[in-house]
Amino acid sequence: MNPSESNVPLAGQIAWNADGLVPAVVQDAVSKEVLMLAYMNEESLRLSLESGQTWFWSRSRNELWNKGATSGHTQQIVSLHYDCDGDTLLVKVRQNGPACHTGAYSCFYREGSVSGDALSSQVGDPQQAQPEDRFSPL
Amino acid sequence: MNPSESNVPLAGQIAWNADGLVPAVVQDAVSKEVLMLAYMNEESLRLSLESGQTWFWSRSRNELWNKGATSGHTQQIVSLHYDCDGDTLLVKVRQNGPACHTGAYSCFYREGSVSGDALSSQVGDPQQAQPEDRFSPL
Repeated sequence: MNPSESNVPLAGQIAWNADGLVPAVVQDAVSKEVLMLAYMNEESLRLSLESGQTWFWSRSRNELWNKGATSGHTQQIVSLHYDCDGDTLLVKVRQNGPACHTGAYSCFYREGSVSGDALSSQVGDPQQAQPEDRFSPL
Repeated sequence: MNPSESNVPLAGQIAWNADGLVPAVVQDAVSKEVLMLAYMNEESLRLSLESGQTWFWSRSRNELWNKGATSGHTQQIVSLHYDCDGDTLLVKVRQNGPACHTGAYSCFYREGSVSGDALSSQVGDPQQAQPEDRFSPL
């Protein structure tokens, strides 16, 4: 059988962690920016694939979380991949508005750098963070 | 003070998990492909920033791991960002050779899809996975 034609239950392919969760990297399918990382349980994975929008498990609130349900900043799923050992998801989305609760386009708006021998960080203004910023090398 | 000028220890900005680790998303700085996710502890973060190459903490082997030290498929760090709540890193790299131990360019070569009402997966051949494949929408 051509392996590209195999069709097996997705949830059974995932190496859920001890809490029944898997980290999901969310990437903008258009700009290719990495927007955020959140966690899915099996129910949120099922809801995501059924609805075509991202659902996560909030570890702080201990509840299912439909991204953007309150803010309107939803994520339409374009594709979903899982990695070689099945313990991480990659979800490519069409992002409506900012992905970060701070108002930043991406949650990764703060850059760490090496200053002399010390580990340091450059704290950016999330309101000013634009997709183009993320493409700049150090 | 302009927040973009602040300079604070990076390790202290990270919300290390109960095991002293933080997930690190590794992205190709050129193609923007997400290559893999691995975990860093404080020592591997320090080694990464000091050497300019990625170091991780292997959860299966319980040891520090210099990515590519054996295979030659090293990752030169271009930039390092951390997210809004400090519990995830985004490391942009120049990838030498394939990132995945299977020989695939990216560890995310397997695609999940909805087949009827069932969650299913399409198992691709990692040897055939090329960067261009990852850019195709469903």
